[in-house]
Amino acid sequence: MPTDIEISRSATLKPLTDVAADMGIGEHLIEPYGRSVAKISLDAIEELADRPRARYVVVSSLTPTPLGEGKTTTTVGLGQGFGHIGHRAVIAIRQPSMGPTFGIKGGAAGGGYSQVAPMESVNLHLTGDLHAVSSAHNLLAAMLDNHLHKGNPLDIDPFSISWRRVLDVNDRDLREIMTGLGGKPHGIPRQTGFDITAASEVMAVLALADSLPDLRKRLGRIVVAYDHNGIPVTAEDLRAAGAMCVQLREAIKPNLMQTIEQTPALVHCGPFGNIAHGNSSVVADLIGIHGGDYLITEAGFGADMGAERFFNIKCRASGLTPDAAVIVATVRSLKAHSGKYKVVAGRPLPDEMLAESPDDVHAGSANLRKQIANIRAHGITPVVAINAFPSDHESEKQAIVDIANSEGVRAAVTSHVAKGGKGAAELAEVVAEACEEPSHFHYLYDDSLLLEDKIDVVARRMYGADGIDLSATARKQLDSYQNNGFGSLPVCIAKTHLSLSADPSRKGAPTGWRLPVREVRASVGAGFIYPICGDMRTMPGLSSRPAAEHIDIDETGQVVGLS
Amino acid sequence: MPTDIEISRSATLKPLTDVAADMGIGEHLIEPYGRSVAKISLDAIEELADRPRARYVVVSSLTPTPLGEGKTTTTVGLGQGFGHIGHRAVIAIRQPSMGPTFGIKGGAAGGGYSQVAPMESVNLHLTGDLHAVSSAHNLLAAMLDNHLHKGNPLDIDPFSISWRRVLDVNDRDLREIMTGLGGKPHGIPRQTGFDITAASEVMAVLALADSLPDLRKRLGRIVVAYDHNGIPVTAEDLRAAGAMCVQLREAIKPNLMQTIEQTPALVHCGPFGNIAHGNSSVVADLIGIHGGDYLITEAGFGADMGAERFFNIKCRASGLTPDAAVIVATVRSLKAHSGKYKVVAGRPLPDEMLAESPDDVHAGSANLRKQIANIRAHGITPVVAINAFPSDHESEKQAIVDIANSEGVRAAVTSHVAKGGKGAAELAEVVAEACEEPSHFHYLYDDSLLLEDKIDVVARRMYGADGIDLSATARKQLDSYQNNGFGSLPVCIAKTHLSLSADPSRKGAPTGWRLPVREVRASVGAGFIYPICGDMRTMPGLSSRPAAEHIDIDETGQVVGLS
Repeated sequence: MPTDIEISRSATLKPLTDVAADMGIGEHLIEPYGRSVAKISLDAIEELADRPRARYVVVSSLTPTPLGEGKTTTTVGLGQGFGHIGHRAVIAIRQPSMGPTFGIKGGAAGGGYSQVAPMESVNLHLTGDLHAVSSAHNLLAAMLDNHLHKGNPLDIDPFSISWRRVLDVNDRDLREIMTGLGGKPHGIPRQTGFDITAASEVMAVLALADSLPDLRKRLGRIVVAYDHNGIPVTAEDLRAAGAMCVQLREAIKPNLMQTIEQTPALVHCGPFGNIAHGNSSVVADLIGIHGGDYLITEAGFGADMGAERFFNIKCRASGLTPDAAVIVATVRSLKAHSGKYKVVAGRPLPDEMLAESPDDVHAGSANLRKQIANIRAHGITPVVAINAFPSDHESEKQAIVDIANSEGVRAAVTSHVAKGGKGAAELAEVVAEACEEPSHFHYLYDDSLLLEDKIDVVARRMYGADGIDLSATARKQLDSYQNNGFGSLPVCIAKTHLSLSADPSRKGAPTGWRLPVREVRASVGAGFIYPICGDMRTMPGLSSRPAAEHIDIDETGQVVGLS
Repeated sequence: MPTDIEISRSATLKPLTDVAADMGIGEHLIEPYGRSVAKISLDAIEELADRPRARYVVVSSLTPTPLGEGKTTTTVGLGQGFGHIGHRAVIAIRQPSMGPTFGIKGGAAGGGYSQVAPMESVNLHLTGDLHAVSSAHNLLAAMLDNHLHKGNPLDIDPFSISWRRVLDVNDRDLREIMTGLGGKPHGIPRQTGFDITAASEVMAVLALADSLPDLRKRLGRIVVAYDHNGIPVTAEDLRAAGAMCVQLREAIKPNLMQTIEQTPALVHCGPFGNIAHGNSSVVADLIGIHGGDYLITEAGFGADMGAERFFNIKCRASGLTPDAAVIVATVRSLKAHSGKYKVVAGRPLPDEMLAESPDDVHAGSANLRKQIANIRAHGITPVVAINAFPSDHESEKQAIVDIANSEGVRAAVTSHVAKGGKGAAELAEVVAEACEEPSHFHYLYDDSLLLEDKIDVVARRMYGADGIDLSATARKQLDSYQNNGFGSLPVCIAKTHLSLSADPSRKGAPTGWRLPVREVRASVGAGFIYPICGDMRTMPGLSSRPAAEHIDIDETGQVVGLS
């Protein structure tokens, strides 16, 4: 099989105005950025409003291994698969972060014959949206430190400052830093640090705003610190929100691309799954929902996290109602959930995991069953997509089908990486069937519930916990958020994505445990409260052999080493 | 008079393909980035090679006040002025840094009726080139710290590390920082800091490279540290240069825009004048040189610095030969050079400076005479452009004409800010005449001269110093650079731009002084050695009232507050 980059380069791509036309988007709404990407004006939301509404499908997964189970490739493949069965689909995916691309991944535009093309654009800068997020975020940081330096008229408590800085790079040495050294002309010494840009609240804001004015308002609401009386200090108070919005006025427009089979692809925003909602943008979906028969959108991590946040955070912001949810499952992930094997990021699978063993697959079924229940808890019909790998045995894939069917859930094997849309045609058929079932979509909890109770509901109903244990700090923070008027926000629980529990080593569907909440933070601009349950890394590091070492240009100026 | 942003918005712009066609650039060489900017493929350099070569004019100035004397507006206005006298001109300017735009300036796309449009694009991200520079720079920094963290196989001396990090923001608190805090998993504690992106060596590299392969080679040559034996450690040694080049492969393509009078404008790169050569890119000029009758390119600071570096660094890299040099002079700057007034950035001129006084202008003439001599020292014909302000008196402008004429130099008053190209028509006429004089262009010194002697030549011949005083550190560094094979590089002297001397308070053309060289640094990738003569700030701070506080979107989504 050719490499990802070879497949991407050999694809025949349509002019983007034709791709847009397929979605009903006129040329006047399209701004080209290079030859293979275009930004879509937000006027498209209103102009397309009278077109028929697409079926809305979210792609999530069972609890993944550290290798990932192929949600992005399945999203791309499913979009292409609909084309093969005569339907028009639009896909919506997140923009990958350059940090991991040059760190461990080497790229994230899909893979094999299910890719968004050209993959160099997706993986490198795209239209600069992530950089605009960094700029806006760091302008606010500079204005905050400048405020302290110029006499601190707002009486900010320096020890309450939660606003760090961001860069789109894997750089562990920036996690904890001291700034403002060198004497009085150079600022006020303070301990702080950098997160990766995807972890910026500005990214979450951009992904959840439904218009430019809404973006402006959300930016103004960002809380960066508290004054000495405990009153929140916002980006608006620092007079930074207007300039931040100006820096983001192009970034809020979704990026239109296409898959290698010419399926329209919206690539927009990438909020970090660890501490934010991990979904692509609301505006992309508001455009895509009128762009075809099906809109396939991706949610990060397992269904307990990505899909739960999709339902309770993103759909709350967009007002859109999903029709079905795909749960991506793999033979290797179900085997891993048997608890018999240890899968490590960046290393090949253990040999014994490759031997034929449908029993191991069945031994890991509890996780898949739980994730199916998690989708149903929101009134949505699940579909299991079995993402086939060359090393899978037929009996193992059939075991997953059997597990799904025993839960009354449709399932299909999909070989979109090896075969493109043709390989996902059966999956598209069963997703289409699922979409015809009545949707009874509802949120998991009311806005009016206490924050503590919202966390408890998610922990019990999604994760299978017996309850939550708040630290003294967490309790104090929750009280403060309730008192400051943030109590009506939804919650975005920051826990490991490698287990339904808060302990990444516990596989399957653990029971008899409680969710420990160490502290709670607030993304008031984005519009959620995020309890921290475990060590959440917000700035990755590089390995001994970063992917960057093998990325280069060749003699003809072509990029090599991306995947 | 309407505001800059109103003038910019009311301009009638041509389709960029038509602007490109005016330069002989076919549509296949153009990649649109939004509706009003396009990148030009570097293939244009070869494809245009058979077209006639334009007259090549560099715009510099006398030693400026802290307010600046209007080099950018004059460059734009002169380009437009050539249109008014029936010639086709192309202008090449630097991309402004967003740090100062949101700090003190509020924008830098020209001004009044001499602007590159739309000014929002010039001032905000443009096509993301500066962000690509930041990304490439910071990837190298992360790979360097990662190398130390992973056992330091190259045996790098941590105290020799000169590679900092960069961001395009005014943020004094990042000047001096400690990174790698928090314990062993989070890196190795080290004192370092951030510079503004314009000050990155990567920016200087991008501006001096003449092709993608040349960019790749220069990046590889960047020296970031020394090992314990004093051997330079490069970006190539760290295996970072390939990935950096991949991140910059779009950024190396010049950005095509137009002035409000539809003159083609190349906006590309912006290396910091303080420590780098402060000129727009070589590739932009290599394209522009075949794009019309005249190519007008801008060099930062006064002629002793910007033009000297243009001649001895940029022309060395490009192989191009200039035909004439414009020296922008203003009544206020000549009055300031009388030494009788103090001009402060961000504050209005002292009232007494506005009273009619041709004598004050004459009292400041030494500076203009010296800058004229500086241009002539390179065998080039100078022209004095008197950039008119509404507060100028006729007798004062005439005084500048008289000074120029007494030196045998052509001069013209230009009112391009108030009147656009029409106001610069007379200037265009005299520049055209100057271009017809024989050019005897030559560098100021040979490559083979010792580095110390190169500094001495520039100090004596350009600045009027009696010689140079090397600190012990500087001498040691120069020896090390000679020994490491960097002796053939040109020098880029980092001194204040507010005086011909190294003391910003000394006006006119100071004599009887020596240039103190505190230390010497090397930009081996960019290809110059830069002696530090004074306090060179590489990261600006914000004022008490940053421009950002007044930049916002209005109800219709339009940007307000840029200028």
